[in-house]
Amino acid sequence: MLRLQAMNSLTEKILSGDKRAIGRAISAVEDARSDAPGLLKEIFPHTGKALVIGITGAPGAGKSTLVDRLAAHYRANDERVGIIAVDPSSPFTGGALLGDRIRMQSMATDPGIFIRSMASRGHLGGLGRATVDAVAIMDAAGYNKVIIETVGVGQDEVDVVKAADVTVVVLVPGMGDGVQAMKAGIMEIGDIFAINKADRDGVLRTERELEMLLSISERPDGWTPPIIKTVATENSGTEALSAAIAGFQAFIATHREQADGRRANTAEHRIIELLRERLVKLAITKVLAEKELRAMAQAVADRRTDPHSVVDEIIGRMGL
Amino acid sequence: MLRLQAMNSLTEKILSGDKRAIGRAISAVEDARSDAPGLLKEIFPHTGKALVIGITGAPGAGKSTLVDRLAAHYRANDERVGIIAVDPSSPFTGGALLGDRIRMQSMATDPGIFIRSMASRGHLGGLGRATVDAVAIMDAAGYNKVIIETVGVGQDEVDVVKAADVTVVVLVPGMGDGVQAMKAGIMEIGDIFAINKADRDGVLRTERELEMLLSISERPDGWTPPIIKTVATENSGTEALSAAIAGFQAFIATHREQADGRRANTAEHRIIELLRERLVKLAITKVLAEKELRAMAQAVADRRTDPHSVVDEIIGRMGL
Repeated sequence: MLRLQAMNSLTEKILSGDKRAIGRAISAVEDARSDAPGLLKEIFPHTGKALVIGITGAPGAGKSTLVDRLAAHYRANDERVGIIAVDPSSPFTGGALLGDRIRMQSMATDPGIFIRSMASRGHLGGLGRATVDAVAIMDAAGYNKVIIETVGVGQDEVDVVKAADVTVVVLVPGMGDGVQAMKAGIMEIGDIFAINKADRDGVLRTERELEMLLSISERPDGWTPPIIKTVATENSGTEALSAAIAGFQAFIATHREQADGRRANTAEHRIIELLRERLVKLAITKVLAEKELRAMAQAVADRRTDPHSVVDEIIGRMGL
Repeated sequence: MLRLQAMNSLTEKILSGDKRAIGRAISAVEDARSDAPGLLKEIFPHTGKALVIGITGAPGAGKSTLVDRLAAHYRANDERVGIIAVDPSSPFTGGALLGDRIRMQSMATDPGIFIRSMASRGHLGGLGRATVDAVAIMDAAGYNKVIIETVGVGQDEVDVVKAADVTVVVLVPGMGDGVQAMKAGIMEIGDIFAINKADRDGVLRTERELEMLLSISERPDGWTPPIIKTVATENSGTEALSAAIAGFQAFIATHREQADGRRANTAEHRIIELLRERLVKLAITKVLAEKELRAMAQAVADRRTDPHSVVDEIIGRMGL
């Protein structure tokens, strides 16, 4: 009973925009704490109001600066902005701290901005699920724009970005062997393309290559992704980028059927992600003794058994 | 009975190095076909002989060319080489075809080389698991070196690369805001660093930054990752890179305890990955009617329910 009251109170604080409560709630979903599902059920009816913007691109493309500029732009229009920096590349340190630290200096004093880094926590996964949960918390807390920033080439990030209402893919001129290197898939998730560092050599070539790639790939929703040139460090192109984002939002509003399909896809992915995490956790806590998983792994490493037989055994014990 | 014979025959063909059989077996694990687990159990005792080399780095770093050079180098020493190009960035097209096509011209005629691209197949995941299974198949088929090439910033790729015996992280000079942009995690998975395109401006700065980063991060196994400068397009540095790989292999051989720990970690990750995939598949096929998942996703999208309640329902139906 006490527990229930505590949760309701946390929910209330989140809905009132209490930053400390928001931080605590995100930590709860990140650590997959037992009180997280209840909390998320409570806030769920209050979500769906924020515009969720995914910003993705290779390391060094200048995503963080671009996100900061965009956030400042929205702030100037008196909108509240939540930023989630996803850093899946730190399996050892639980990283993503550097970005936070740098940003703290310029933006943490602004009460209308909430910044949070999310990093992977070991091989049980759940980064994608935790990120989507964090978006829901910020959404419920009344942030008008929630920006997810992620290094964009892994499946996890693609999934995270697919959960956004609008996705911006950030490229830089003359990067490596051209935009072709970005591969077809990453091209297809971009609703908008930003060529950042557009004061550099090769910007025209990159733009031409990109236009060509976009011209041969037809989207099922009929939208033609605009290409915006930005120099984030000089705050150039921010206005055009935000206009493009608003343009896509308007397009979506007049194409309900496609938008509904996209939302259903997102929900389906979320259900599966959550199911996956819960089932593995159940398997490990319910049918395996402490250190038994490690002993099984050792047996596989020594080739005394194989992983498929081990999994058969675990699933058998679960009665499935 | 017929089925069992057919499998045994496929296993035999794989062990004899039959390329068509290897290709069929990899397709089976990639599609998670029902005959795949039995096949993998059969070949498992024949694995563990190949040196598995993970090569990772951002798009445009020149990984493919470097892998090709390394493969040619091993071929010159009469070793058989398997190459797996992991392309997780194509959720829509199932991509990874371009790389294959280009390579076909130069290497597919060599009977000592087997090249395979693996791409993600939708949101049920399993790319990491399928890649590790493909490595096992090539290993059992007698390939001395199995090279996994992957765009290296997502959790999936980090996991894939952690399954390798030795991991090479490929950087390029002056890339974006320097190697710091590669983030702590990706630095920590590198046993060897290659600065490719080392004829470009900024190579010394990149090398210095890298040395500094490596000097502040101490590895638990005591190994100091060497930095190798390469120009893959001119086949420069290939010899040094292969020497560094052999050097790490020799180091591992004299540090059994660390090597055992690494193998057990890999096995544990593999068990969990497999478990995750099997459990979700079981949930979807056993307790959900056709299109029921989609209906549930639609209900979540319409905010008639929330994902946590849906997952509670599914897990309840599974009797867990």
